[in-house]
Amino acid sequence: MKQEKQYAVIGLGRFGTSVAKTLHKMGYEVLAIDSNEDKVQEFSNEVTHVVQADSTDEAALTALGIRNFDVVVVAIGEDVQANVLTTLQLKEIGVSYIVAKARDALHGKMLQKIGADRVIYPERDMGQRVAYNLVSSNVLDYIELSPDLGIVEVAIPQILIGKTLAEANLRAKYEINVVAIKREEQLMVPPLPSEKFTKHDILVVVGGIKGIQGLEELT
Amino acid sequence: MKQEKQYAVIGLGRFGTSVAKTLHKMGYEVLAIDSNEDKVQEFSNEVTHVVQADSTDEAALTALGIRNFDVVVVAIGEDVQANVLTTLQLKEIGVSYIVAKARDALHGKMLQKIGADRVIYPERDMGQRVAYNLVSSNVLDYIELSPDLGIVEVAIPQILIGKTLAEANLRAKYEINVVAIKREEQLMVPPLPSEKFTKHDILVVVGGIKGIQGLEELT
Ligand SMILES: Nc1ncnc2c1ncn2[C@@H]1O[C@H](COP(=O)(O)OP(=O)(O)OP(=O)(O)O)[C@@H](O)[C@H]1O
Ligand SMILES: Nc1ncnc2c1ncn2[C@@H]1O[C@H](COP(=O)(O)OP(=O)(O)OP(=O)(O)O)[C@@H](O)[C@H]1O
Ligand SMILES: [Ca+2]
Ligand SMILES: [Ca+2]
Ligand SMILES: [Ca+2]
Ligand SMILES: [Ca+2]
Repeated sequence: MKQEKQYAVIGLGRFGTSVAKTLHKMGYEVLAIDSNEDKVQEFSNEVTHVVQADSTDEAALTALGIRNFDVVVVAIGEDVQANVLTTLQLKEIGVSYIVAKARDALHGKMLQKIGADRVIYPERDMGQRVAYNLVSSNVLDYIELSPDLGIVEVAIPQILIGKTLAEANLRAKYEINVVAIKREEQLMVPPLPSEKFTKHDILVVVGGIKGIQGLEELT
Repeated sequence: MKQEKQYAVIGLGRFGTSVAKTLHKMGYEVLAIDSNEDKVQEFSNEVTHVVQADSTDEAALTALGIRNFDVVVVAIGEDVQANVLTTLQLKEIGVSYIVAKARDALHGKMLQKIGADRVIYPERDMGQRVAYNLVSSNVLDYIELSPDLGIVEVAIPQILIGKTLAEANLRAKYEINVVAIKREEQLMVPPLPSEKFTKHDILVVVGGIKGIQGLEELT
């Protein structure tokens, strides 16, 4: 184990499973908890520890030593009552950092009031990302970094093929920054100014939405 | 309406709702479809058109003129059979771009075989993002661009305050690229090499996970 920080994830739906697996892959200790025995079985090879327990039961949580975990993620979805009760128990036990998944804005507000340190809306956030991506055929992926800064993957506009990055002069023209070029299996980060664009290049570009739209319109 | 492109979203769970609302906000025509009457009622003020229909029923889809939509998003979740059948019907009807939500890798492969143009795993992807964000208190947001390339927002490590971007020499040391600096209301994209770091700067950095971890360890 690479680090001493300890994580617990409660609720092994798709979101919780992904959080737990990713933490485990990065070398962290992860305790995974679910009330459903099948889920616990299914997951037993995937992370450090998996236990069957009802997280709305304070005694069960205490027996697991949940207080000693640095971060506890509440990933129970459909059952809002179980989600809220669990968060409440964790707070009372004194867990220092609680992350909770919310169904909607009202649920999220409630979680915040109870004392969740961070509230997450996985489906809402991914829905927004997918919508942004869909509206432009050329842009493979748009991620908002702030209201006026985004990062996108853009298929190389025809007109730029054969030009070098320096010749394309995108920084001056559109106030955007090509931070990487993906070329088949290769990844150039950062690309050299002398790099010549080829047919199937994908550019990873950071910039304002206007500049990015300008680049798209080149196609 | 800003644009002529037309979208349909089938399945008004949290993900589908978010896709439909976001497209509508951006000025696009959106047809939302759900078999559940309550969902249809709930959503009737949110997008252009909402109808109650069972999307596994080819006749119903045809009656809605689904063939004329440029993009159809299948956002049915729990009911894998309905999700797959719907995708199959859309493909047979000849919809030109089908986006489908998958529960897991196996389901995703099946959707691809059937002919979905894009398969999305909202819970898995958000789980990864949240895990990356949790492991570092310094990193404000990690977004995976590819298995070995990510973009993060990092609070300026103490040791770099007062140095210029050029002096910090992060590109050579960690193979990372500072693509923007956020300083209170200001946003510098791209930052000048002569830019001097100040106390509350947030760096937007692109690079491999190793390089990013190296930068974090500076703190
Ligand atoms: N009281 C509880 N204690 C422990 N685990 C619970 C409790 N209640 C529900 N769970 C577990 O939480 C898990 C996730 O819940 P659920 O499937 O309802 O969420 P979801 O929002 O559909 O998840 P996702 O969209 O991420 O797949 C389930 O495996 C369920 O067994
Ligand atoms: N055959 C069908 N035709 C139309 N709509 C359907 C059909 N089957 C299911 N739906 C609708 O799909 C919607 C989303 O499905 P569900 O809630 O099972 O997915 P989910 O993965 O839990 O979604 P999310 O995590 O995004 O909230 C529901 O509102 C449901 O009524
Ligand atoms: Ca579920
Ligand atoms: Ca706290
Ligand atoms: Ca879900
Ligand atoms: Ca659901």
